[in-house]
Amino acid sequence: MHFTDRLTAAIQSKSPVCVGLDPSLEKLPEGISKDAAGVLAFGKAIINATKSIAGICKPQMAYYEVLGWEGMKVFWETCTYAQEQGLMVIADGKRGDIGSTCEAYADAYLFAGSPIDALTVNPYLGSDGINPFIERAVKNDKGIYVLVKTSNSSSGELQDLPIGDEVVHEHMAQLTESWAAQQLGPETNLSCIGAVVGATYPEELKYLRTLMPHVPFLIPGYGAQGGTAEDVRHGFLADGTGAIVNASRSIIYASNGKDFAEAAHNAAEKMKEDLLSVL
Amino acid sequence: MHFTDRLTAAIQSKSPVCVGLDPSLEKLPEGISKDAAGVLAFGKAIINATKSIAGICKPQMAYYEVLGWEGMKVFWETCTYAQEQGLMVIADGKRGDIGSTCEAYADAYLFAGSPIDALTVNPYLGSDGINPFIERAVKNDKGIYVLVKTSNSSSGELQDLPIGDEVVHEHMAQLTESWAAQQLGPETNLSCIGAVVGATYPEELKYLRTLMPHVPFLIPGYGAQGGTAEDVRHGFLADGTGAIVNASRSIIYASNGKDFAEAAHNAAEKMKEDLLSVL
Repeated sequence: MHFTDRLTAAIQSKSPVCVGLDPSLEKLPEGISKDAAGVLAFGKAIINATKSIAGICKPQMAYYEVLGWEGMKVFWETCTYAQEQGLMVIADGKRGDIGSTCEAYADAYLFAGSPIDALTVNPYLGSDGINPFIERAVKNDKGIYVLVKTSNSSSGELQDLPIGDEVVHEHMAQLTESWAAQQLGPETNLSCIGAVVGATYPEELKYLRTLMPHVPFLIPGYGAQGGTAEDVRHGFLADGTGAIVNASRSIIYASNGKDFAEAAHNAAEKMKEDLLSVL
Repeated sequence: MHFTDRLTAAIQSKSPVCVGLDPSLEKLPEGISKDAAGVLAFGKAIINATKSIAGICKPQMAYYEVLGWEGMKVFWETCTYAQEQGLMVIADGKRGDIGSTCEAYADAYLFAGSPIDALTVNPYLGSDGINPFIERAVKNDKGIYVLVKTSNSSSGELQDLPIGDEVVHEHMAQLTESWAAQQLGPETNLSCIGAVVGATYPEELKYLRTLMPHVPFLIPGYGAQGGTAEDVRHGFLADGTGAIVNASRSIIYASNGKDFAEAAHNAAEKMKEDLLSVL
């Protein structure tokens, strides 16, 4: 099934909540060992606690890479477990390179049968750094999310630079829409080429939705970073699909005690209700 | 010793040649197994064959990541071996993220005692995506190379967009110089914060050298991508330091027969002579 059709089904059957897996060793809760095995156990516990609410999870690769190759082993095991539990998996690696190197990144994560459904990618290198990902995504029913307007406070240093009547991230949005419009899902009129747009810039988010009508949004910045349900509302299409909202810390570290899984469940449920109240 | 002082010593004692390790399975030469063990053996053979000529190697992470966690194990083993052979190691991962995630990437590669001397980083996210790398680099005598103007044909789609009287990559160059000028090596007046500037845009390279007087350059695009010694000449400082020139395919795949190591040695020697003839 086309990536976006699976994604839309996950949003409609569960919610637009995406659970970010950012398993920092020093933040792992009571009862979880502070090593790669603990990171795997923690990820599985969070997946089990939230899978009835959120159909999508987003492991953040940096937290696995910092544990060396043992961390990467656990990264793949976490992705496989998530897939077995019926979740879609977005690998948040923000990869990007050119030519045969970019092909290698695309083959690394978006191969046929990969437990990973989509990868976040960085557009600084231009379409040479995007096309190999698009090719694999189309061929293997996978997706990508292009960084367009990120949620951090210094994102404007490059992304808001004025170019003529627009700014850099608006230009990137138009490029992304032009790539996306060629690759629509049969059921949804949405593309397998998505965009990362931060919840922390609600006006930009609203405008970017109009610039990218065929692009599914991945919206970080809700919760710990300050974004609210009202802030992300305009990232969605009229039918309540077309976007997922990520929260990491506010869910996975809702408690650092032995009740962390129950607390994560409750935080995800609260976020779901919060989002659905405005959609 | 400060990163740039080590780098300058490597350039002066050997050459400005940086050997790019892009070990694609299907291109591995005769006699090398087409698996992770072969990638390690190939990397070691290339390092041994070129270490008398080139003091710097640049493993390209995508080619290791595509082999899964076994590839990452071999990546670290290759970096450790290169360090043991007296080489400096630039991990070409083009990483970039924000906040604690960016700290995790920086801790993953630029920790004290890491066999990696420097990491390539992507500036799309602004200084939030750069500062954690700078902090670790300064603290642990490591370096970073910020993507400024990349060597690929579509690099201009974003990097050449006009903003007022300049273009995006010139603005990035000024930002990079502003970060770099605060972190100079005691011996060289050069910073541990470097820039990636492609050999395939020689006019831009010449101008970017004037915009970033304290920034060491990593220049890809020589050889297989079409850049010549004349093209890269203006990336250097007057004393022949301040830049390294990377070649990957033209060295490591100089032969696909059993003589690949000898061919790599000869290709690296030829490149060294070619570069020194114009410096």
